[in-house]
This record gives sequence, C-alpha cells and structure tokens, in this order.
Amino acid sequence: MNTSIIKYVLGYVLKIEAALLLLPCVVAVIYRESQGWYYLAVAAASGLIGYLMSRKKPADFVFFLKEGCVATAFSWIFLSFFGCLPFYLSGEIPSFTDALFETISGFTTTGASILTDVEALSQCALFWRSFTHWIGGMGVLVFLLMIIPLSGGSHINLMRAESPGPSVGKLVPNVKATARILYIIYFGMTVLEVILLLLCKAPLFDALTISFGTAGTGGFGIKNSSIADYSSAFQWVVTIFMILFGVNFNAYYYMLFRKFRKALSMEEVKAYFGVIAVAIAIIFFEIWRTTGGVATALRDAAFQVGSIITTTGYSTADFDQWTQTCRTILVLLMFIGACAGSTGGGIKVSRFIILVKTLGKELNSYMHPKSVRKIKMEGKPIEHEVVRSTNVYFITFVLVFAASLFAISFEGKDLVTNFTAVAATINNIGPGLEMVGPTQNFSFFSPFSKYVLMFDMLAGRLELFPLLLLFYPPIWTETIRRKRRKLLP
Amino acid sequence: MNTSIIKYVLGYVLKIEAALLLLPCVVAVIYRESQGWYYLAVAAASGLIGYLMSRKKPADFVFFLKEGCVATAFSWIFLSFFGCLPFYLSGEIPSFTDALFETISGFTTTGASILTDVEALSQCALFWRSFTHWIGGMGVLVFLLMIIPLSGGSHINLMRAESPGPSVGKLVPNVKATARILYIIYFGMTVLEVILLLLCKAPLFDALTISFGTAGTGGFGIKNSSIADYSSAFQWVVTIFMILFGVNFNAYYYMLFRKFRKALSMEEVKAYFGVIAVAIAIIFFEIWRTTGGVATALRDAAFQVGSIITTTGYSTADFDQWTQTCRTILVLLMFIGACAGSTGGGIKVSRFIILVKTLGKELNSYMHPKSVRKIKMEGKPIEHEVVRSTNVYFITFVLVFAASLFAISFEGKDLVTNFTAVAATINNIGPGLEMVGPTQNFSFFSPFSKYVLMFDMLAGRLELFPLLLLFYPPIWTETIRRKRRKLLP
Repeated sequence: MNTSIIKYVLGYVLKIEAALLLLPCVVAVIYRESQGWYYLAVAAASGLIGYLMSRKKPADFVFFLKEGCVATAFSWIFLSFFGCLPFYLSGEIPSFTDALFETISGFTTTGASILTDVEALSQCALFWRSFTHWIGGMGVLVFLLMIIPLSGGSHINLMRAESPGPSVGKLVPNVKATARILYIIYFGMTVLEVILLLLCKAPLFDALTISFGTAGTGGFGIKNSSIADYSSAFQWVVTIFMILFGVNFNAYYYMLFRKFRKALSMEEVKAYFGVIAVAIAIIFFEIWRTTGGVATALRDAAFQVGSIITTTGYSTADFDQWTQTCRTILVLLMFIGACAGSTGGGIKVSRFIILVKTLGKELNSYMHPKSVRKIKMEGKPIEHEVVRSTNVYFITFVLVFAASLFAISFEGKDLVTNFTAVAATINNIGPGLEMVGPTQNFSFFSPFSKYVLMFDMLAGRLELFPLLLLFYPPIWTETIRRKRRKLLP
Repeated sequence: MNTSIIKYVLGYVLKIEAALLLLPCVVAVIYRESQGWYYLAVAAASGLIGYLMSRKKPADFVFFLKEGCVATAFSWIFLSFFGCLPFYLSGEIPSFTDALFETISGFTTTGASILTDVEALSQCALFWRSFTHWIGGMGVLVFLLMIIPLSGGSHINLMRAESPGPSVGKLVPNVKATARILYIIYFGMTVLEVILLLLCKAPLFDALTISFGTAGTGGFGIKNSSIADYSSAFQWVVTIFMILFGVNFNAYYYMLFRKFRKALSMEEVKAYFGVIAVAIAIIFFEIWRTTGGVATALRDAAFQVGSIITTTGYSTADFDQWTQTCRTILVLLMFIGACAGSTGGGIKVSRFIILVKTLGKELNSYMHPKSVRKIKMEGKPIEHEVVRSTNVYFITFVLVFAASLFAISFEGKDLVTNFTAVAATINNIGPGLEMVGPTQNFSFFSPFSKYVLMFDMLAGRLELFPLLLLFYPPIWTETIRRKRRKLLP
C-alpha cells in the first residue's frame, strides 16, 4: 500500500479542518464566548499536524482503490477526532466518548445526539455542531479533489470511496470539474434556504444552523424541540429543502444546463417523489383525525416523511406516538433513504430500483431460462458490475446490521429501541423509535454500544466498504509483508 | 405453458392426499371418534377429483422449470385446501380462514397455530395436524417423483422447485433414486425417534405425533404447553432429533455409504453445529442464574436453540421472557435457519456461508481489483450461477419480508409482534415474540393479515419463486396469448 500518499492526503484534510474550525471562532467573537479559545487551539494543533504530515510530497502520486478507501476511512476518523476536541476540552461535553459520538454523528450527517439539553450549549458549539453536517454532507474529500494534485485515475478512486450511491456519476469527464460543480450547487442551494428562512423572520443564527443541517441531511437542531417551535412557514421551507437535498444532484446539474427533460425523466428521482407522495398520503389519513386540523396533519406528515426518507432527522411531531402503520412506514423509509448522488443516507432509491428489477428479471428467467435480457434504467442497460455490486452492498448492509443489533443487545434494551437505534445510525438519520424516539436521545447507551453505533454511522456514510476494509486483516498483513521484503536484501 | 401436465400432476397429488387422509380415519376408529367420517368423506372427494384430473394422460410429458414451479405452487395450495376441509366441516375449527391457516401452517412445517386450546381437538384431528408436518417436511412432489413417469430433465425441474436450499443436490445421477434414498432416510430417522420416545415412557400417540412434528421441523404440539410437560429425557430426545433433522440429508447419505470423512467435512454442517453451540453457550450463561439449576438451564437453552434454528417451533420455556440478548439471538437464528437439503426452513446456513464469502471476496477485490478468484466451498469453486441466485434469493426474501410487515401493520399491533410474526411464518418456525410468543397464538390477527401470513408460510416453504411466479402477470398473459393463437387459423 502506498502509505506515503495516504499520509499526505490526511495532512491536507487536517489543514482544511483547521481552516473550518476558524468559523466557530468567529461566532465566539460575535457572542463574546470564552469557549472560542478551544476552537482556536484545536485549529492551530490540527493545522500544525496537517502541515507536518503533508510537508513531504510523496514520491508516487498514483493511488488505487485500496488507498482511496483507506485514505477516506482514516480521513473521516481524523476529522471526527480533531472535531470533537473543542467539545471535550471546553467541558461542554464532559465525556470523550460522548463528544466523539456527537462529532461523528455530525460529520456523518446522522444527527443522533447524546445531549439531553441542547440549549445549554454555547453558540459557537451549536454552530460547529451544525456546521459539521454541512461539511460532511458533500464530503471533505470531494472538496479536496478540487485542490489536491493527483495523477491519472487517482481522483476517481478517491471520489468513488466517498460518494454515496451504486455508481459514481461523473457529471463531466473531468473529476475536478465535477467536484466544483457539485460544490457550487450545494453552496447555492444552502444560501437560497438561508434567505428563505430569513424571510420567514427567523434569526440569522437559526437560519444558518438549520440550513446546514438541512443541506447535509444531518438533523442536529439548536432547540430541544428540534423544529417544532418554529412557524409553519419555516417548517414548510425546511420540508421542501430537505426533500430537495435528497434529490440526485445530477438532476440539478441537468437543470443548470437547461436539460430539463433529462432531469425530469430520471427514474430514480421519479421513484423518490412517488414514494414520498404515497408515504405522506397514508400517514396523513392515519393522523388527520387526531392532529389539530388538516393543515397541521399535512404539514406534520410531509415534514416527518421528508425528514426520514432524506435521513435528515429533524422532527416537528413525536412520530413515536403515531399509529403502528405510520411507524412501520417510517421504519421502511429509513432503509430506502434518499437518492444516490445526494447528501442523504440510507440504502438509496436507485439501489432499490435495481433490486426490484433484479427480482423481476429473476421471475422472467423462470419463464425464459435462456433469456439474457439486461436490467435497464432510463432506457439504457445497466452494467453487470453495477447490479452485482448493488447486490453485494445490500447483503453486506444486512450482515453489518445484524451484527450491530446483536452487539448492542447485551444492554438489555427492548428490541424496537435496538433495531431502530442501529437503523437510525447506519442509515445516518438520527432519531428512531421508543427510547431513541424523536423526543429522546442516545445518552443512555453504554460506551461499548456507543462505539458500535459510531462504527455504524461511519460505515453508513462511507457506504460500508471503505470502513470495513480497515478491519480486513490481509490489507495490513500484505502491507507489512511488502515493507519487510524491501528491508531484506 | 403445458397446462395439461400441470393438471395431471395435481391430480396425482390429490390421489396421494386421499390415501394419506385414510390414516386419521384409522385413528378415529381406534378412538371411536365420529369426526373420522369427515376425513373419509374428504378422502373420497379428493380421490375422485384427483382421478378425474389425472385420468387423461397429457400428450407431452416434458415440462420446463416454469411448469415445475407452477405445478409445485398449485400442489401446495390444493393440498392445503383439501387438507383443511375436515377441520372446517367437522366444526373443530369453525372459521374457514382459520382452518386453512392451520393446515398451511402444518404442510409448510411452520407450526403457527390459531388454536387457543389444542387439547380440545379430537385425537384424529391432532393426528392429522401433526401428520401434515411429516408430509410437508420432505415434500409431496419429491414423493411423486418416485411414482410418476416423466421424461427427460422434467424430474429435476419439479424437484428444484420444491427442494430447500441454493442448489439441488442430486445424491445419485437418477432423480428417482435420489428421492427414494431421501424418503428412506426420513422414514428411518422418524421410526428411530418414535422408538426412543417410547423408551422414555411416552404414550404411542404422543411419540408418533411429536416425532412427525420433529421430523418435518413443524412444531404443532398436542398439548397447550407444547413440550414443557414431558420428562427431561423426552425433551433431550426431541432436542437431538430436531437438530439432526436440520442437518443436510447429504450427510446422512454419505454416512449410509460409510463415507464418514466426507460427511464430517461438510462446511455447512460444521457451521450449523458451530452456530448452535455458540448460541446455546451464550443463552445458557444468560439464563442459568434465573432458571432452576444448571441442568434445566442447559436443557432449556439447547431445546429452544434447536427448535428455532431448525425452524421447528416446539417450546419448553417461554423464551419471550428471557433477556434481550437471548431474544435477539433467537430472532437472528430464525433467519439463519437449518441446512439446505434438510426439512428445516429459514434462509439456510449454506446461503449465509455464501453471503459471508461474497463479502470477503468483495473486500479482497478492493485490494486486487483484477483478481478473478471464485468463492470456494468444500475446496471446490462455487458456480457463478449459485452465487447469483443466492444473492437474488436474499434480496427477494428481504423485499417480501418488508412488504408483509407493511401489509400487517394496519392491524395496529406492536412492531415486535408484527416483525416476529412475519419472521416466524416466512421462515416456517411458528412462534415469535410478544403477542405471537411461545405461549401465545395467531388467532387475534384479522383475516387479511392471516392471508398475508399464509402467503409468507407458502413462500418460505417453496423458497419464494414458485409462489411469486403465480403473481407475475406475464406468465398468464403469455399462456392466454398462445392459446388464442392456436384457436386462430
């Protein structure tokens, strides 16, 4: 393994984090909060270590999928480790495990919190907490792609490891240009949401932090009641933007270049809106009698469906108290997730389309055993490799899920709590049901279970394999063997 | 589609059922029960209809996988329909839906009951109920293979549709001979269990019915307390035989021909015993303090683990009251299931071995993207087709599971009840947790939910595709189109 390039990439990541940590410092200055010093100190430390790590340029700038995955996994672990230090050092989150949990939850855009009282945090902490969502939503490495000089096919190996979805959609042949377009869309839409929320008479701080959480499909609120206490106009804006950030960004790319027909004909996007419409309709009919009026019921249904399917995790109603049908629908939506190529998590709509089409093809093969028909999407046959890797992804997902469920079962919590806690973390949502419901939090878990759930959050955000690879012994034994061979004559 | 051969096969199935229905008549004579007349009447009707259906030999004795699947699915539906009539007509189960549920549960070796008081049934009803397990365990069509004259590769198409597991293991090149050997092993082991249970001083009726339920991995008991009131020796015999009937029958075949080393080296069998040992050990440590003594705890742990992993469903303890770890382990075991080529249900151990190896291969491919290493089992590479169909099976399983969970959620029962009700039926186990726990039953479900669960039981027993094919429109539209074309000049 080309360890020197991994070190180099990690150094760059830390330098970026140092720059990003300066923003909460600005917030601290504005609100005259002494906690700002901790952010400044960690920024300095992170910048220095980053500088030292990336000072020496690696001899070889080519790196393969393996290095891409390992670099990605370590980047996210490094980011989270340094990102949690201000919380821990300032004493705002006294336990290191909790601080790390909260930060991983932030960067992975999960939004599961261990805090029982969010409002007690300082403004700079609240800002940093929400800002991690925005950073994690699009991915740091995608950002890195714009500035780091890598050779040949190396860019795509880095992007493939971090991008959500079954296939990496290079919008334009050049990976750097793709990354730039993605960030422009991301930035533009975030600004638009901030402006709209300001028009709803929200304070700037609220508009900013809630927009960060929406854009990254994160879900950390800055109030204990999440979004419930904001005006209904505010809630509708958040609903719409949550759903918009769950759309495959390719659609926006097409729209940017006035290819509206191509954007509207995307099968995944159509299915995504179809699922949302059906889920809202059923939940609306289930709750409208018991909720205060038709308008409230519709708003609550739309908000919660948008929040769960995009894996954001904001809430305006305690859906844990809804009927079993509603709860079951929401649990199913947790797994479906948003579109590939969006900032959302979950298994992704396009994967489910491929899975359902695989089933259809199988049934067809019982009628015509010699047929070699390929699965099609948007009229074009899907590469066998994409179908295969989708199947493998799904299988791996279920196996990791089952193992996590088993690992946290030793706590003795009820099955629904355990099941939805794993579902809410591996799908990067945030709230689940019962003891991890929307009005609850994850603080009661033991440190062991918290580390299992942290693993799930990272595994979910990185689409499993980059993280699992770190736990695959041959990758280390082979590297060590090669290094030894070099030392021998 | 060759409909005439399907009709012919179905006719044969009904004739066999007519013969089988005479056994409860004998029981009725012995116990002087008037309900016996209903069994005789249904036997006569079933025999007559079967005779009429199979009177005319089809012109073409060749049939393909499609016909094999459709014939299998309809056979099981016909079997269950006629099999439930004595329960319904005699008034012992007053609701037709309930009678059908109980019979499908019997034939599919699920053992989920809608009866609140089993002991109120007549002896002939109890006998028939347990006997359906024995019939369903090995499969009626496997039996048919021995007596029906089919040409060419048709046998294997029928066997493939009914046999559990990822690949049909033809023990010997001739399918007829394979079927005969399977039935000899099945019959022999059942007789052995009956003898051992008689040695435990059990009455003959109990020894017979409990053995039927063990052999078929069914789980219908003849007492309201299932197996809890029998002696500990009796419970140990049942435990051992449950586990033995969950072993791949190929192992017994090898042992029959003194190929002991080959039998003991079967990867699936080793993994199966490994999982059982680990599960028993963990559960034992979780419960031994609260259960009356080490011996009882070990017996209870072994019995319940054996019962769940083999998807039998007998119980000697209310495992719904055990710790969350135990409950989670049992839920996971429900999905793992027994070995392929046994009478047990579930996803099957060998499928999980393939799935885990697929994951390992995927991780390896991140290191060596150009490697074309194949997955191996017992030293031999697995055919790509087997891996692919295992993946597709798993995906289909999860999709059917999710759809069923959604369908029964409208009842408003809690999530654990719904989840384990679907798990217990699609995996052909019987009891689940909470409201469908081992001391409960399925009677409270609405007729709609009962039909969903009946679908799941049949889908699980027939390994999904034969049943799903009936709901795949092209299979019917194509047949109709062909028939029409024939009528036109």
